[in-house]
Formats: sequence, C-alpha cells, structure tokens
Amino acid sequence: MSIQRYLEISQQRVDRHLQQLLASAPVGAERLREAMAYSLFNGGKRVRPMLVFASCEALGGDPEQALPAAAAVELIHAYSLVHDDLPAMDDDDLRRGKPTCHIAYDEATAILAGDALQALAFEQLCQPVPTHNSGLQLQLVQLLARGAGLYGMVAGQAIDLAAVGKPLGLDQLEQMHNHKTGALICASVEMGARIGGASADQLQRLQRYARAVGLAFQVQDDILDVEADTETLGKTQGADQALNKPTYPALLGLEGAKHKAQTLLEEALDALVPFNDQASPLRELARYIVHRSH
Amino acid sequence: MSIQRYLEISQQRVDRHLQQLLASAPVGAERLREAMAYSLFNGGKRVRPMLVFASCEALGGDPEQALPAAAAVELIHAYSLVHDDLPAMDDDDLRRGKPTCHIAYDEATAILAGDALQALAFEQLCQPVPTHNSGLQLQLVQLLARGAGLYGMVAGQAIDLAAVGKPLGLDQLEQMHNHKTGALICASVEMGARIGGASADQLQRLQRYARAVGLAFQVQDDILDVEADTETLGKTQGADQALNKPTYPALLGLEGAKHKAQTLLEEALDALVPFNDQASPLRELARYIVHRSH
Repeated sequence: MSIQRYLEISQQRVDRHLQQLLASAPVGAERLREAMAYSLFNGGKRVRPMLVFASCEALGGDPEQALPAAAAVELIHAYSLVHDDLPAMDDDDLRRGKPTCHIAYDEATAILAGDALQALAFEQLCQPVPTHNSGLQLQLVQLLARGAGLYGMVAGQAIDLAAVGKPLGLDQLEQMHNHKTGALICASVEMGARIGGASADQLQRLQRYARAVGLAFQVQDDILDVEADTETLGKTQGADQALNKPTYPALLGLEGAKHKAQTLLEEALDALVPFNDQASPLRELARYIVHRSH
Repeated sequence: MSIQRYLEISQQRVDRHLQQLLASAPVGAERLREAMAYSLFNGGKRVRPMLVFASCEALGGDPEQALPAAAAVELIHAYSLVHDDLPAMDDDDLRRGKPTCHIAYDEATAILAGDALQALAFEQLCQPVPTHNSGLQLQLVQLLARGAGLYGMVAGQAIDLAAVGKPLGLDQLEQMHNHKTGALICASVEMGARIGGASADQLQRLQRYARAVGLAFQVQDDILDVEADTETLGKTQGADQALNKPTYPALLGLEGAKHKAQTLLEEALDALVPFNDQASPLRELARYIVHRSH
C-alpha cells in the first residue's frame, strides 16, 4: 500500500470517529460546536493519528483499537492550532488558505472552542474499548496529558513566545521544538505502542523513532517555510523569518537544514531495524515527513 | 468542627498538593509555570475541592484519597477563570482585588497558562492512588472531562456569551448556569461520591444535592454582585448589570432571588436526609454557599 493510500485510510477512519464526537451540542452551544468542527475538519493531514495507527500496527496491533487514542491526539493538535492563531499569539488570519477560527467566528468563541476540544480529547479517551483494560486506558490519558501540558506542548509554545526576537542557539531551538511539536508526536507513537503491547525494548526503539521524526518534522517545516510560496502553503511566506523567529535554515543554512532532516530520517529508520514488515507504514511515514512538499 | 475550620483544613490540604504539582518547569517555561501558580494561588476559597472531600466523607471515605480529584477540579476551575478574564471574554482587570493573569503577565501567557492548567488537571488525576483501581480513576477522568467540556462548563460559557444583551427567560438562565458552574460542581460531588464508594441510591441523592447547591451558588453570586461593593468583592460592582447580563435579581427581584436561594438550600438538605452525621460538612457547605457574604 502506498503511503498516500495509507494516509487516506487513516484520515477517513479518524475523521469518521471525530464526526460522531461532534454530532450534537447542548441548546445554545451550537455555535461552539460549529467552531470546534470548523477547526477540526480543516483539511489537516492527520499525521499524528496516523502515527498512532502505524505504531500500533508495527507491533501487530489492530488500528481500530487505537481509534480513540488517534482521535485524542488530533483533538489536542486542533485545539493548539486554534489558540496558536489567536491575535495575542501568532495572530494568523489564514490556515490552509481558510480563515482561522477567530476570524471565521470570533475571538471568544475560538478560545472556548480550543478549551472544549482539549476536554473532548480526554473525555473520549475514557470511553470503554473492548480490548483495553482500564489500566492501559489510564496510561494513555496520562501520556497524552503530559505530552500536551507544562512538560510538553504548551511549554514549547511558551519557550517559543519567549524566544521571539532573541538569538537562539541550536540546542535551545531543539529544546523548544522537542516540546512544541515533539512531545505530542512522541505521545502519539507511545500511545500506539502501548496499545500494540510493546515490550520495554520495542518501546524504547519507538521512542527513539518518535524523537527523530518529531524533530525532522519541524526541520522540514522550517525548510518549507523558506521554499514554499503563499499559495502552496496557505500561509504567508516566510512568516517565521518576518517575525524574526529562529529556524533551522537560519542557523544551519538551507543546505545544512536539509542535511539535518536527512540525518534525522536515517536515525528514525535505524531505530526500526529489528521490526518486520508490519513497521512499513512507520518507515514510509518518516520518509513522507522529510520529503513532503507542503 | 466549624465550617470555617473545615474550609481551612480542606484548603491547606489541596494547596499543599497543588504546590507540589507546580514545583518546577522545563527550562524556558518558568514564566508559564509562574503564571499558572499566580492564577492558582489567588486566595480562592477552594469550594469545589471541599465538595469533593465532603462528598467522599459523607460516605465514610478518607478525604486524603480524594486529593487528586480535589486538585483536578480546582485546576479546571482556575483555568476557566484565567480564560474568562481575557479581553476577548469578560475583559476583567481585577480578580479578588489583584490583577488578572493577562494583566500581571500578558495575554499570550494567560492563554497558555489556562491551557496547561487544564492538561495538568487530567495528568495528575492519572497518578496512581493506592486505594483506587484504575477503573475508578478512569471514571473520575471521564466525569471531570465531561463536566468541563462541550456538555459542561465550556458550553455554559458559550451560552453566556451568546446571551449578552439578549433577554433570557428563567429557564434559559438556569440552563446556562447548570452548564457554566453547575456542571463542575456536580462533577466535584460525583467524583467524591465515587471515591467514597456510593451506592446507586446514594449517588442519585448526592447528584440532587449537587444540582441544587450548584444553582444556589450562582443565585447567591448574582445577589452578591448587586449587594456587595467593589472593595468587599474585589471586582467591579454590578459588572453583570453593566454588561446587561441576565441575573436572578434582574428576573426575580432581589427578594425573589433570596427566596430562590433559600428554596434551593432546602432542596439540597432534603436530598441528604438519609445520610448520617458524616454528611455534616456537606450540609454546612450548602448553608455556607447560600449565606456567604463574598
């Protein structure tokens, strides 16, 4: 199966589930539900859910069992984008070529939609799954909450905010990204691994894979920001540079950044060496992340 | 034990736990941690944690076992206040006479602090508790997430937003409050009840108690907003009236609202009739909520 086909299937699987979660709302909160759905179904590639599915499958697990976990990471990712785009944060009017949530609705609704998306991630992760015992489910909640919070994604956003306009070294840039995008990507892989029943050694290898892929994702993002034009990317070209944000191309040069992405890809693939063909989607996904053009 | 003493003990117990949770932060995210602590330790009365403890004790449970649940509801409450005060929401500069989080720090930090407080609520609720099986813990996470999200607190805030400047009937006002404050109060009581090992009948009675107390809390809040002056309350007097927000005194008159609060108190106490003296704190708490002067 091609990676494109795998992405499509993963996307359809998780989108069906997410749609059910947002099928209704209490009277008077319809606009909140709409804003949540608007932000969630915005053409995202569902890379994180796919990492959950592929990690589970790499161990012979059934991806259907990983559906609540996959939905949960996407809900957290979606909420973070809504809040990131707010005027007080990145102040972005467009995402994927469409008005951001606070433009399409209003700022208050965008704040609340983000808040409710986060709560929904945890709520639906507690739904009974026939094959999961509650110990495993609790572990998944904890992994996700840690990856999302003060020791994970939100810390990365705070480090990012503090860094605007300041010269960052490579180590500091990496520390920021390891939190901002890396933590949720690591949580995605580890959740899939736990559902798939990973041994201690398998878990360690998958964590290595996740750290490399998480960073590669960000390096490639920075490269695309330099290379892509507004039309392809759906956001203003060179936005990070304009904000004087530190990036890998700025620190390493464009060629240096490309070399870094390639090295990280090799590291990710190396971590998967003992795994059999069931890990093919994970391998392909790492290649896709580094070679994608948008 | 007087209710004041019980409040003090509950407050100290939960504050110690909360302080440990916020003892450190990743490098670069110190300001985020500070803003979280600033918002969490702002002189709040810890009514919700006390409801968790008192519900657990009403069934003969050990309140120490309810500590993570008590901390979790307070973390959710604290995050909701931070986001509620934002310029795009209620735009409040003061809370309890101190600058609100976005004034003391900045708006972006306040958004992130709220987000991280929410994640922390769920993360620490997953910490192992010796006497809890993971099935119970998972149930607690789900109760809290539901009470906080699209079918709970955030829905209430959205209904509240939509209602500004519009005439609301009594039923609509109640529907708003049942979500905005009631849902988290119900979750607090139900979490305590589950930890205390409530039977189906006990649970139903405690839910009745919680619904009445939750609404009484809001009615009394509206009354205080009319009666109290800025100094006592620490927020601008009559702020709700100024915003043309619907309130119980506006709909029922001041005396009518007081009568309503008294009726709800009686309903709450009636729900507790079959409980023995272990439910005294719950009874006292209901009286305190209706008779408090700030």
